[in-house]
Amino acid sequence: MTLKLTFIGLGVMGYPMAGHLAKAGHQVTVYNRSTAKAEKWSTEFKGQFALTPALAAQDADIVFCCVGNDDDVRSVTIGDEGVVNTMKAGSILVDHTTASAELALELDTACRNAGLSFIDAPVSGGQQGAENGKLTIMCGGEESTFHIAQPIMSTYAQAVNLMGQAGAGQLTKMVNQICIAGLVQGLSEGLYFAEKAGLDQNKVIDVISKGAAGSWQMLNRHKTMIEDQYNHGFAVDWMRKDLDICLSQGRKIGAKLPITAIIDQFYAEVQAMGGARWDTSSLLKRLKATD
Amino acid sequence: MTLKLTFIGLGVMGYPMAGHLAKAGHQVTVYNRSTAKAEKWSTEFKGQFALTPALAAQDADIVFCCVGNDDDVRSVTIGDEGVVNTMKAGSILVDHTTASAELALELDTACRNAGLSFIDAPVSGGQQGAENGKLTIMCGGEESTFHIAQPIMSTYAQAVNLMGQAGAGQLTKMVNQICIAGLVQGLSEGLYFAEKAGLDQNKVIDVISKGAAGSWQMLNRHKTMIEDQYNHGFAVDWMRKDLDICLSQGRKIGAKLPITAIIDQFYAEVQAMGGARWDTSSLLKRLKATD
Amino acid sequence: MTLKLTFIGLGVMGYPMAGHLAKAGHQVTVYNRSTAKAEKWSTEFKGQFALTPALAAQDADIVFCCVGNDDDVRSVTIGDEGVVNTMKAGSILVDHTTASAELALELDTACRNAGLSFIDAPVSGGQQGAENGKLTIMCGGEESTFHIAQPIMSTYAQAVNLMGQAGAGQLTKMVNQICIAGLVQGLSEGLYFAEKAGLDQNKVIDVISKGAAGSWQMLNRHKTMIEDQYNHGFAVDWMRKDLDICLSQGRKIGAKLPITAIIDQFYAEVQAMGGARWDTSSLLKRLKATD
Amino acid sequence: MTLKLTFIGLGVMGYPMAGHLAKAGHQVTVYNRSTAKAEKWSTEFKGQFALTPALAAQDADIVFCCVGNDDDVRSVTIGDEGVVNTMKAGSILVDHTTASAELALELDTACRNAGLSFIDAPVSGGQQGAENGKLTIMCGGEESTFHIAQPIMSTYAQAVNLMGQAGAGQLTKMVNQICIAGLVQGLSEGLYFAEKAGLDQNKVIDVISKGAAGSWQMLNRHKTMIEDQYNHGFAVDWMRKDLDICLSQGRKIGAKLPITAIIDQFYAEVQAMGGARWDTSSLLKRLKATD
Repeated sequence: MTLKLTFIGLGVMGYPMAGHLAKAGHQVTVYNRSTAKAEKWSTEFKGQFALTPALAAQDADIVFCCVGNDDDVRSVTIGDEGVVNTMKAGSILVDHTTASAELALELDTACRNAGLSFIDAPVSGGQQGAENGKLTIMCGGEESTFHIAQPIMSTYAQAVNLMGQAGAGQLTKMVNQICIAGLVQGLSEGLYFAEKAGLDQNKVIDVISKGAAGSWQMLNRHKTMIEDQYNHGFAVDWMRKDLDICLSQGRKIGAKLPITAIIDQFYAEVQAMGGARWDTSSLLKRLKATD
Repeated sequence: MTLKLTFIGLGVMGYPMAGHLAKAGHQVTVYNRSTAKAEKWSTEFKGQFALTPALAAQDADIVFCCVGNDDDVRSVTIGDEGVVNTMKAGSILVDHTTASAELALELDTACRNAGLSFIDAPVSGGQQGAENGKLTIMCGGEESTFHIAQPIMSTYAQAVNLMGQAGAGQLTKMVNQICIAGLVQGLSEGLYFAEKAGLDQNKVIDVISKGAAGSWQMLNRHKTMIEDQYNHGFAVDWMRKDLDICLSQGRKIGAKLPITAIIDQFYAEVQAMGGARWDTSSLLKRLKATD
Repeated sequence: MTLKLTFIGLGVMGYPMAGHLAKAGHQVTVYNRSTAKAEKWSTEFKGQFALTPALAAQDADIVFCCVGNDDDVRSVTIGDEGVVNTMKAGSILVDHTTASAELALELDTACRNAGLSFIDAPVSGGQQGAENGKLTIMCGGEESTFHIAQPIMSTYAQAVNLMGQAGAGQLTKMVNQICIAGLVQGLSEGLYFAEKAGLDQNKVIDVISKGAAGSWQMLNRHKTMIEDQYNHGFAVDWMRKDLDICLSQGRKIGAKLPITAIIDQFYAEVQAMGGARWDTSSLLKRLKATD
Repeated sequence: MTLKLTFIGLGVMGYPMAGHLAKAGHQVTVYNRSTAKAEKWSTEFKGQFALTPALAAQDADIVFCCVGNDDDVRSVTIGDEGVVNTMKAGSILVDHTTASAELALELDTACRNAGLSFIDAPVSGGQQGAENGKLTIMCGGEESTFHIAQPIMSTYAQAVNLMGQAGAGQLTKMVNQICIAGLVQGLSEGLYFAEKAGLDQNKVIDVISKGAAGSWQMLNRHKTMIEDQYNHGFAVDWMRKDLDICLSQGRKIGAKLPITAIIDQFYAEVQAMGGARWDTSSLLKRLKATD
């Protein structure tokens, strides 16, 4: 079945995601803040582009959005030229931005009031996952809505999961980021210690990565960490944005996050070192900074 | 080839390890502080037991040792009734205790002076790994010695690795424990947050465990953590002993371990809660303690 | 000189502060969210009360405000019934609320646009300081405005300081709270250790309080800490509100606050223990919680 | 009354302390590892020097000791040429070294066995306090012994306090160092934030130092901290030695010291930056290191 789809936000994630939708045969209209990129996309994928989110969303069955932060989402959805103003009755808004659970509830209400449905749907898997169509998507919303949107999202995902009501997608993504923060700092201290101790770091990882210390990060990041290479992966600036959301939410629900909080500050040190765009594994570089 | 082997220390690890040696057809003599257990072992595995380490080690080709801490090792090796006093020229001492790198160097020297060879060989894989013969062993010592001892250790190990000179086994084990501390705290904060946020914790783990937040601990410990079950696994008391070794070594080699240091203190809180024997994943229980 | 003054917010701080103004002979009109308290105040201090901030601020030479948080301030100043709507040209708005520096800049602009002057003026010294008229006030704003408002604020302050342009008062208050967080945790760990070590805690404080470990908190809080009494002083809920402001500001200006961030999380544990209204020194009680 | 006194260890503390004893008219014999310094001292203060601790201690009424660490103390007291071998029956050994409580108990027992009395007596007040005779001394031991030694120690102290049985002096000193660690980090984060916020740091300290954030460190260290001057005061190397003692003791008595533990690691970063001899207030410099 061919649907009319709209995609708002053509960053490193959104650009290929919207591309997958077009390649799957859907009729896709995109919007991007800088029109040049929207034009480039429409040429590459034979789709349409519009000059405002509201214009892009007219007649769409599903509107997808993947922008920077809460305020960016508000602007393109419930802002003056936002998609909610023009979406047709019964259509669905899917937000792929990693944002607050509060925003998800706010958009859910706005959509209900406008006769629309909403799903918060943050992703993990990074730029590579977006390009390969292998993202993992964590959704919050009504089951009936999810069942409509799920097959479409599968175009760019290896797993699309309904986690609960509106906001549950964002909350699940927060759990993911919280787990990563402590894990990467532990891994960094381990590799740092190994180097100081004069061990062959690669050999050490070979030996311990299958056991109780093993992790995705150890397996996928140790080589670049040992080589002091961080110009790749998930940027520290984004991680800090996400951790800010986690810590604010923790404050709201009474969840204490002591180590997450201090590692967020360690990432501030990485930013100060010039590492705003480095991969999150650059916590190791911070440990070496004072050597 | 049948060897004459000695095993010192029949704790939850040593008991089955020595058993594997006997079952492989070697002639094994054991020593244990409480003789009752040594007697039980000798009945079960048709081996010998001796009343002192020195007596147990006479004529042995290789002497294995797996006891509590540095001082325990000193006592059974270079102490008055220690094995070094009676081991025959050219034989090998293998220490499976997780201990300091300093001790490894001390024993290496003592062995050299006595015409013996030494390997420090701490293990990972826990009680289950010892029972199933699936331990991972991290060795420090001479290559020629390693090549003799390696096949014998393979009786109870899935991997036996030479990491470098004497002490390198202990240092590798330290890296392992350092990586675990941060990882488990991150996982605990994540699961705690998930519960507070009203998410289905098992579903969350299903979704995120394959991605960037994934780890052995997440896969193998989330169920018991969610069920608040900690009467299993690697005990907090042992973890604190190991982290003490890591932090002392860090002090010596100038390796900063900020998060390892504070998590060691969190484990002190777990001990104070009565969790001395709980699994290391009980950091989650600590987070809930003040709720 | 008798002035027409308005005071918005009659909490434990504002109530006595407004009282000092009335006792100094000024003509004071108050506003409070719950009118009962405003009425009580007007009876006690022979002043007026009004039913909205806007009504209270008519004809005032200076309007003071001391409410809960940023949003509360916005509501009573630039909200629909806020004071800025009715303040006469050339009059001054003084905000005693501990709030964000961003809010101070926002109000400064709003006042300029309305032909008014603004001073952010958070206080320290607590309820007792407010009652005794011994507060310390940290101001941000224009010097000429400060010179008019300073003598009036002196009615309830022992020190009124101009720290810089708008926002500088709030920023100074943040420095104060940041210094306190680390200090109180250090003091708590010290007293806790002393108890565990079996020392006479009072005697220890007698000896060390004059030296390099000495502090206002040690001098003024050790007795209640030792007695496990926390129903007094500066509430943990307020401290967390303030630390949230500090951490947000730190994020904005690139100031890393690792220990402030983690102690803020320790305060979350105190809240979870039921300590929302306890004094900030209750970090000691948190250390004991797991014993 | 003129006594025969012995002083072991002529470092920056011991040299002037022994000098005060001589100037008070006592007959003082000193020992120092490097004899040149002992000779210099004996010339300056018209005393004697000896070539071993044992020789120095013969006939002494009280033997004072102020050396580096536990092992140094053991060497000069119960070592082969230690003072305990030659001290006369009924004489007193006073240890001014900041050392472990365990050592204090060990020496107390050794002294009792030799018919001697022991007092552990660590000091605070720094080099300046030693030179001006204004130290604060925290003692552990028997009251009767204390009453004999107290007036002699007053020669170089403004306060000499008996805190309890043997070890209580050391434990009190630990409380002092624990309180300082958190306090100095809080102060550092505060001053750092102030600078980043563009405030006049000196003016800020003027305003907040009398209130709830005030401390000896704020009063006495803010100027040098603001000027980035750390070549003075209490060296980071010594602080780490002391914190190591605190953390080991905490481990023994079950006292959790989370922030002390992590700040000890921050001091490791200062050492790595080349700050081994910098004042403890150099935690501020660490915060700036990644800027």
